[in-house]
Amino acid sequence: MSQNIYDDPEFFEGYSKMKRSVSGLEGANEWPRLRTFIPNLTGNRVLDLGCGFGWFARWAKEQGAEAVHGVDISQNMLDKAHRLTEESKHDGITYQLADLDGLRLPERDSGAYDIVFSSLAFHYLEHLPDLIGEVHRVLKPQGRFVFSVEHPIYTAPSRPGIVEVEGEPGSKYWPLNDYQKEGLRVTNWLAEGVRKHHRTVSTYINILLAAKFELTDFDEWHPSAEELASHPSWDSEIVRPTFLLIGATKK
Amino acid sequence: MSQNIYDDPEFFEGYSKMKRSVSGLEGANEWPRLRTFIPNLTGNRVLDLGCGFGWFARWAKEQGAEAVHGVDISQNMLDKAHRLTEESKHDGITYQLADLDGLRLPERDSGAYDIVFSSLAFHYLEHLPDLIGEVHRVLKPQGRFVFSVEHPIYTAPSRPGIVEVEGEPGSKYWPLNDYQKEGLRVTNWLAEGVRKHHRTVSTYINILLAAKFELTDFDEWHPSAEELASHPSWDSEIVRPTFLLIGATKK
Repeated sequence: MSQNIYDDPEFFEGYSKMKRSVSGLEGANEWPRLRTFIPNLTGNRVLDLGCGFGWFARWAKEQGAEAVHGVDISQNMLDKAHRLTEESKHDGITYQLADLDGLRLPERDSGAYDIVFSSLAFHYLEHLPDLIGEVHRVLKPQGRFVFSVEHPIYTAPSRPGIVEVEGEPGSKYWPLNDYQKEGLRVTNWLAEGVRKHHRTVSTYINILLAAKFELTDFDEWHPSAEELASHPSWDSEIVRPTFLLIGATKK
Repeated sequence: MSQNIYDDPEFFEGYSKMKRSVSGLEGANEWPRLRTFIPNLTGNRVLDLGCGFGWFARWAKEQGAEAVHGVDISQNMLDKAHRLTEESKHDGITYQLADLDGLRLPERDSGAYDIVFSSLAFHYLEHLPDLIGEVHRVLKPQGRFVFSVEHPIYTAPSRPGIVEVEGEPGSKYWPLNDYQKEGLRVTNWLAEGVRKHHRTVSTYINILLAAKFELTDFDEWHPSAEELASHPSWDSEIVRPTFLLIGATKK
């Protein structure tokens, strides 16, 4: 079972104020790149694992998807997702409260989806290979699987944070360690004691290959020169990657 | 043109004393894993890019390969490769002196090879996509491409080296920076001024996908628990990966 940190009041309040929570997809720095991995959704059945406030679900409907099913562990998140979806008068979207760690989708969903999407959820899960097996099962042949996670370089360190090296004023380093020690990481981000599961890049790729996906898209997001010029504080994204973006096709 | 550091006397002397130079493939820590990416070679035509002393070429012949062609930039390396190959009475092996950066293989080699192999050479090259295009051209349909490079986490930093963090005696960190700044890195390893070209994991993968390869094997080598128990000094390999191992198939 994964930790339901999104229903922690302190975490939820902090998360709700983030640019990506207020502005939706356009507020997520990595979205313009991740979007390029997503095919034309016209008439598609879409599954969103870790749907949060439902920003992607509503966007997918606007792109012509026939039906979107969102799953999330947090009642807080889904309450707001329902509210926003009603306000914007989107139909054809269903939401389900469930833990992705151990999720079993209905038998009738085998081969039912054109695309499965997930944004920044999988690094919270302990039993990811089981879920990827479910994703493969519910996709149609040649179905698309597009997801993002916190990058393994970002999740690995026991002291995650940009530091200055002594004797090099203004230098920016990421003190990487324990990259090859996979497993639980407890960090303080928005609230204390946030539990993540660190996996290497190899492990993410090999889980996909073992489940009979073909890797088709792969990106370690970083700002372009233009984005960096307008957002100088994003220079820490050059030091180390924060997001890993992956696209795959069911073989 | 790439730097021919292997013909620098100081570098060559240092390199010749390394375990992998003296003992061949079995002296390379990552070899047992990389070997698993290589199919049965019986009757195969094999190309080895950056063949060095020819350890892989001779091994491939012993595995039943019909013919092996090795290419290397260093006359020193090839002189020793010829000598060792004569001493061990291997035939069917040819060696060619050439810079991999800008290498054009003969037109008649289109679709000629079953497998192209390269060990720890590509991070020296400036124009890697051109070479990967050549690899694709000379492979048969469904031909295999197996290679290793220094891992991007290893090549990125401006100060590569394990450090102890102040106030944490015995701690081991890898001061990662400039991960997203691709390009030239000049380091001092065996000799001063060794020139490498840093690329991200994304770039290695996307060069392959753009050239119409399917990614089939991917590993960030690290010692197993048993290897670590017999070689305690290998614990720096847990801090950060040194080698990236990739297998791909021509689509």
